[in-house]
Amino acid sequence: MSSQRALRVAVVGTGTMGADHVRRLRNVISGARVTAVVDIDAERAKSLADATEGCTAYTEPAVAMAAQDVDAVLIASPGPAHEAALLEALSRDLPVLCEKPLTPDAASALRVLEAEQKLGHRRVQVGFMRRYDAEYLKLKRLLDEGKLGRTLMLHQQHRNPAMPAWFTEEMLINDSVVHEMDVTRWLLGQEITAVTVHKPAPSAQAPAGMSDPQFVLFETGAGALVDVEIFGHCGYGYEVHAEAVCEHGTVRIGDEHGPRVSADGRWGGRVTPDYIERFQDAYDREVQAWVDATRRGEVTGPGVWDGYAAAAVCEAGVLSQREGRRVEVELVERPALYR
Amino acid sequence: MSSQRALRVAVVGTGTMGADHVRRLRNVISGARVTAVVDIDAERAKSLADATEGCTAYTEPAVAMAAQDVDAVLIASPGPAHEAALLEALSRDLPVLCEKPLTPDAASALRVLEAEQKLGHRRVQVGFMRRYDAEYLKLKRLLDEGKLGRTLMLHQQHRNPAMPAWFTEEMLINDSVVHEMDVTRWLLGQEITAVTVHKPAPSAQAPAGMSDPQFVLFETGAGALVDVEIFGHCGYGYEVHAEAVCEHGTVRIGDEHGPRVSADGRWGGRVTPDYIERFQDAYDREVQAWVDATRRGEVTGPGVWDGYAAAAVCEAGVLSQREGRRVEVELVERPALYR
Amino acid sequence: MSSQRALRVAVVGTGTMGADHVRRLRNVISGARVTAVVDIDAERAKSLADATEGCTAYTEPAVAMAAQDVDAVLIASPGPAHEAALLEALSRDLPVLCEKPLTPDAASALRVLEAEQKLGHRRVQVGFMRRYDAEYLKLKRLLDEGKLGRTLMLHQQHRNPAMPAWFTEEMLINDSVVHEMDVTRWLLGQEITAVTVHKPAPSAQAPAGMSDPQFVLFETGAGALVDVEIFGHCGYGYEVHAEAVCEHGTVRIGDEHGPRVSADGRWGGRVTPDYIERFQDAYDREVQAWVDATRRGEVTGPGVWDGYAAAAVCEAGVLSQREGRRVEVELVERPALYR
Amino acid sequence: MSSQRALRVAVVGTGTMGADHVRRLRNVISGARVTAVVDIDAERAKSLADATEGCTAYTEPAVAMAAQDVDAVLIASPGPAHEAALLEALSRDLPVLCEKPLTPDAASALRVLEAEQKLGHRRVQVGFMRRYDAEYLKLKRLLDEGKLGRTLMLHQQHRNPAMPAWFTEEMLINDSVVHEMDVTRWLLGQEITAVTVHKPAPSAQAPAGMSDPQFVLFETGAGALVDVEIFGHCGYGYEVHAEAVCEHGTVRIGDEHGPRVSADGRWGGRVTPDYIERFQDAYDREVQAWVDATRRGEVTGPGVWDGYAAAAVCEAGVLSQREGRRVEVELVERPALYR
Repeated sequence: MSSQRALRVAVVGTGTMGADHVRRLRNVISGARVTAVVDIDAERAKSLADATEGCTAYTEPAVAMAAQDVDAVLIASPGPAHEAALLEALSRDLPVLCEKPLTPDAASALRVLEAEQKLGHRRVQVGFMRRYDAEYLKLKRLLDEGKLGRTLMLHQQHRNPAMPAWFTEEMLINDSVVHEMDVTRWLLGQEITAVTVHKPAPSAQAPAGMSDPQFVLFETGAGALVDVEIFGHCGYGYEVHAEAVCEHGTVRIGDEHGPRVSADGRWGGRVTPDYIERFQDAYDREVQAWVDATRRGEVTGPGVWDGYAAAAVCEAGVLSQREGRRVEVELVERPALYR
Repeated sequence: MSSQRALRVAVVGTGTMGADHVRRLRNVISGARVTAVVDIDAERAKSLADATEGCTAYTEPAVAMAAQDVDAVLIASPGPAHEAALLEALSRDLPVLCEKPLTPDAASALRVLEAEQKLGHRRVQVGFMRRYDAEYLKLKRLLDEGKLGRTLMLHQQHRNPAMPAWFTEEMLINDSVVHEMDVTRWLLGQEITAVTVHKPAPSAQAPAGMSDPQFVLFETGAGALVDVEIFGHCGYGYEVHAEAVCEHGTVRIGDEHGPRVSADGRWGGRVTPDYIERFQDAYDREVQAWVDATRRGEVTGPGVWDGYAAAAVCEAGVLSQREGRRVEVELVERPALYR
Repeated sequence: MSSQRALRVAVVGTGTMGADHVRRLRNVISGARVTAVVDIDAERAKSLADATEGCTAYTEPAVAMAAQDVDAVLIASPGPAHEAALLEALSRDLPVLCEKPLTPDAASALRVLEAEQKLGHRRVQVGFMRRYDAEYLKLKRLLDEGKLGRTLMLHQQHRNPAMPAWFTEEMLINDSVVHEMDVTRWLLGQEITAVTVHKPAPSAQAPAGMSDPQFVLFETGAGALVDVEIFGHCGYGYEVHAEAVCEHGTVRIGDEHGPRVSADGRWGGRVTPDYIERFQDAYDREVQAWVDATRRGEVTGPGVWDGYAAAAVCEAGVLSQREGRRVEVELVERPALYR
Repeated sequence: MSSQRALRVAVVGTGTMGADHVRRLRNVISGARVTAVVDIDAERAKSLADATEGCTAYTEPAVAMAAQDVDAVLIASPGPAHEAALLEALSRDLPVLCEKPLTPDAASALRVLEAEQKLGHRRVQVGFMRRYDAEYLKLKRLLDEGKLGRTLMLHQQHRNPAMPAWFTEEMLINDSVVHEMDVTRWLLGQEITAVTVHKPAPSAQAPAGMSDPQFVLFETGAGALVDVEIFGHCGYGYEVHAEAVCEHGTVRIGDEHGPRVSADGRWGGRVTPDYIERFQDAYDREVQAWVDATRRGEVTGPGVWDGYAAAAVCEAGVLSQREGRRVEVELVERPALYR
């Protein structure tokens, strides 16, 4: 049963993702209200606050978090701004849903890890929303059931129709493959211990300075081998596939289906055009789960350790991408709080 | 943007469906609260009210509807109780979401139709939730786009693993095929003008006194031919398929997909076990859409005319089922309010 | 093991189908040679014979069948010419593969039936080649295994991109639905006892004088209900689907697959353009099976009784098509030779 | 048109594969006869010859090839015996279909290459039968059309339910992955320039001494990256998938389909149990194409150069497998005869 009051949320960052979360909390999510929006762009914050009942605009995260009517924080600002906002929220013992990445590098993630440890309990959930996608959840359940035995390999494909102009080659790892990193860790329950990035001859669609597609190999603690095709400019739509190869069977998710049309000499259907349509339900479910857990005083989703581990694997991935060699991943010992 | 206040809903009937709607309004739906639950079983109403914040139990629908903190009514009581509750709600000009059937027969549906007409504006939405299912919506969009031309035929299959012991042969029409009736009217934008029910030799799984499966043919106003397989005891799961045959193409929905497992010498996946899992998202979307529209002062879903038309087609269907012949459907002239 | 000598075949009729069978016997089939081709068009026969090693051209079927180097006959002439050729072959006790239809009506089919009975053993196979299609064979095996229980209903769709200009409405039954008649009888092991043809409002692609598509219902001896969509001008390709609804499960065949391409915002593949590509393997397998069985002195495929039953159901179907009513099928008693 | 006479074939080696080819040539293939079978096991050769019309048994390939009634040779003996048989056939200018591998290593393959070059025309086809599989042929056609742009990556999975007891780890490369090597070279029209073999933690089903599954990376001349999962003991069936990732789209083949059954709470179908069933049509088509081409005096299939290139890549693969490092492939310059 729900608690007495709706959760009052401050949303930090009102770009595409932040504005979408405000809309989601207002129109889709049960048990929460947006009472504060924060953006260094005061105009943008104000216009969003004006459109939202009982909501105040701020330019400083710390000021918003200090407000009487704020119970929790959703961080959707650019990655480099995350550390400060997270430390502020932790210092006030406020529950946080932080969009990925937790922070842009392992060192800063480690500082957040230490702050939460000092606090002594978990307060932060990281926005790895694939863990809330219906198909991934079913895949996870099938693997956890144990009938298929251990997972030996995991094949993944991650394709975008095109990337924005400002998207760099490093972001193929940090912004795209980071999802497969978290999926790998979550599905297998193992840390990634080494990364190797391969670059085939690029597509003519790849922009200057970006080798696209790339092919990434992960090795995990228990010896599973995981491959990821990342293709930023496949041209035809957004596709995310995963196939787990287990001792007694294989499981594949992500094939498009939907209405099957036969017309004009062809059968088939439409490819989802982008991640917003493909993972809309996952975002809704993620935020609802965070609101529900927060109202119960719990953290149930991926946490700071997951954000830190992803940051460390990303660092290794970018190094491998640059130097064309296998790079081992070094993690600090996992603190008791995250076991 | 949402109005000032959450919609305060009285839920009439607290059986399986009513209790599920209370849970949905409480935990899933944004912008609504359950402030009243009504059941002739006072105990059951009280226990549900106690578990819901700010909610009062009633045994009389009229008393609940008169309460200060009730803005709208969701009717989930047994069909024979719908007419009285609907007339009461209409007399108070309250917005209603009424689970199907609107009423159990065409004559009583006509009385509701007249009451709403006298009121002069639409207040009642009927619970044909397939109109909110993602696949049906995509099918509807494809047909409405017009590229495929007119729809000439519609093939539908509706299978249940088994029916409860109290389920009668007539209910195959009134409770099951009624969904395909509404889907047909909605997808094609045409009334059903005649019904013929065929009974093949029954399955050994059919209970005594029920010929199961049955095969129903609809003819529509513009001459489309629609067939429906209704199978109450197919044994293996819940399946709903529809295939539209158009002048320039065909569209099929409803094939199971989900994770594709290869194991034990077989490929494939799990069949959805029941309508609750299959159509959960549709129920959520239906109630959210009703709450949103009601807060805007609108009725956007299927209305009393749809409930009446379904009741008239059901009557014809049951007659055809009994007498083994084609039965024409008679409808009153469509009032201006529903054009 | 094969007998001493290749089977020497006379092919009667050298139109599209006949010429294709000559090519098949020459290039694809093991254990047979074409030693005679027959056509009233002497030029056409000669040009085909000249291109085939050891082959003589004839204009009279009877003369070809009397030749020393003819062991068996493949009849691919127009339907009205079949009876005479069949009676000639039976009078000489020659094995025959006769393209469908056996003869154009039940009365003439009955005369062939009587001739074969008088001969006292089966010599004629009818060209219902779907019985040799890999998917139909697997469906048949699944139904015959018995695990799925009795077949209660059978849904079938039969779509062509377009029909030639000379194709009449009656030919929708006699040339197209006749395949589903035979499939029904073969899969279910039951005779068809009644036929009803429904005509929805036609497609704008239907030529003048032809109501297209049509929807045909068969009732069978044990009470199964079978529906067939026949669509002569669906525009987009050739599709043949069948779905058996059994007591414990359902089986569907005929969905296109093949390479699955994702490109241009769509996933899917190509629809087979015509029956020649769709059923090429079935034709090859049919003729090989006939050659193999004939060399062993056997008849293993569909026979004269199947041709006669199809002719009788076709007559009933055309009558139903004309008069818009259910028509019962009358068959003579099944002779011992065909039990 | 076919030549005057059936092709008279000597089959060398009468184990599983050789005996199956004898059956195929006798019962399936048009235009060929088996006139000689050769095996060091005289009993086995004799028993097969006795069952075949007009066929003589031999124990020496050279003696069989010298026989008057032998026009062509099909070599299906163990790999180490291939070189001698190939050189003998080439010395007699006899057309050969040689089961893969051409020879067990690059050095011996090179000797065959030199012998054929000295002869001055191509006589030998190697048994890479996937080039004759309907799905691979469609994939090849789609890539060659050019609409999808260059192929950037190729993902392949090759799974067997289990391997025989005598199957070694090296045979995962030499007997299994060799197919993907040839497919890669054929589909892309490029040589493989480097191989890296990865070994994830093995399945508990893997026999002692074999790390199974393995994951193989090929780099090609034009920079495409190709990955191959080879799994010898997946337990559930035989599966071969390939997915080409091109500049403007992707193409996937190999998903099982066939009758789609819904029963027992599951949808799906049967996985092909072994390569014999999966590739039966490809074997038939391969041998028929060889017989047809040979009768025309041509060699149209994969030749000695393909067999040599595969042997060189296999050597590199086995070295990588042993030493856990990337190994480059060295090829001699491609002789004019094979350009």
